[in-house]
Amino acid sequence: MTVIITAFESSPDRGKGLARDMRVRWALEEVGVPHEVRPLSFAAMKEPAHLALHPFGQIPTYEDDGLVLFESGAIVLHVAEGGAGLLPSDPNARARAISWMFAALNTVEPPIVELSFAKLIEGDRSWFHERMPLLQDNVRNRLRPLSAHLAGADWLDGAFSAGDLVMIHVLQRLKSTGLLEEHPNLAGYVSRGEERPAYKRAFAAQLAAFTGRQGMT
Amino acid sequence: MTVIITAFESSPDRGKGLARDMRVRWALEEVGVPHEVRPLSFAAMKEPAHLALHPFGQIPTYEDDGLVLFESGAIVLHVAEGGAGLLPSDPNARARAISWMFAALNTVEPPIVELSFAKLIEGDRSWFHERMPLLQDNVRNRLRPLSAHLAGADWLDGAFSAGDLVMIHVLQRLKSTGLLEEHPNLAGYVSRGEERPAYKRAFAAQLAAFTGRQGMT
Repeated sequence: MTVIITAFESSPDRGKGLARDMRVRWALEEVGVPHEVRPLSFAAMKEPAHLALHPFGQIPTYEDDGLVLFESGAIVLHVAEGGAGLLPSDPNARARAISWMFAALNTVEPPIVELSFAKLIEGDRSWFHERMPLLQDNVRNRLRPLSAHLAGADWLDGAFSAGDLVMIHVLQRLKSTGLLEEHPNLAGYVSRGEERPAYKRAFAAQLAAFTGRQGMT
Repeated sequence: MTVIITAFESSPDRGKGLARDMRVRWALEEVGVPHEVRPLSFAAMKEPAHLALHPFGQIPTYEDDGLVLFESGAIVLHVAEGGAGLLPSDPNARARAISWMFAALNTVEPPIVELSFAKLIEGDRSWFHERMPLLQDNVRNRLRPLSAHLAGADWLDGAFSAGDLVMIHVLQRLKSTGLLEEHPNLAGYVSRGEERPAYKRAFAAQLAAFTGRQGMT
């Protein structure tokens, strides 16, 4: 049976690859697992058929021969465990790579998502401009130690891992903010991820899904 | 060698067990792993010796015979993988339990932390009272589907797992907000977690660390 994942029918970022299906596409390309993508409308995401797969009515989900998973982090970890190239074989290095996955999702991503959603949701509120420096500093407080840890290395802990994959995708959401550029080594780190052939294949696939659907309308 | 974890020297919540070391203490108690707790002052958390263990200068960390981990989610997963009782042996059920860990940390916790930190950090700002309903609704948008999924079950997916452990600890931060009580099944779910002997041992240990230190000053 082929792996099936779900993604937005019409990507809100217009094909920039920021939605969380991109992490899963990238991981599947890194380990070489063929997969199909089932596009979902916003309405379909909240219908019982999808809620049975994803209790929070979001994308992505992952289906493989009776196994159903949700949460991009959990899916990337599952894909990494089932293939080669995303987790070291040494048990201690493997556990550290998983630490970086959780750091990306629970320490670095929340202030980044808060910053980007404030623009979307509170952009017309009276307090928006006064709050922005607070939100930007919350992100800076994560980027500074991340940059110090990375220093001159290519990846966060030895070879490229699922920890880097998730962290790089989390950082990509900062591209329009100028914050990433305050740390040239982090900007370079994101670029290194984007240069990987597996990333390019995954990015092209999600872009084609968007432009293809645009062409149909 | 004994497992060593780090925790706040003086708990900011005055022994309520909301800091992230509590998850790790609870997991270690569930699987029966003896451990020592090294208390850290806020100043010590930002010093090089601790930054070498935790790049973001936070607690908890985990040390065991040369392995150093950070991020409560990663540590709980590592503890769960090394013992019995926190992850099912069936591979599919195991992957689903890990999905719930990521759901707790990446979907449910961020709006809860945002709500509680707004009170701490923006409580004196002009916009605070006008923003509160937005923040509360962000939390409600997570609790509603979580409550619907749990329905009348004891735990999120079959037997108690690391996914329940992390989710329950995430939900505990809502206790002073009244939001948990909007879903009696979620309030009952949290209580069920707190009734577990391993939870009680972990809670007593972190409370004793707080009251003991209070007694010394």
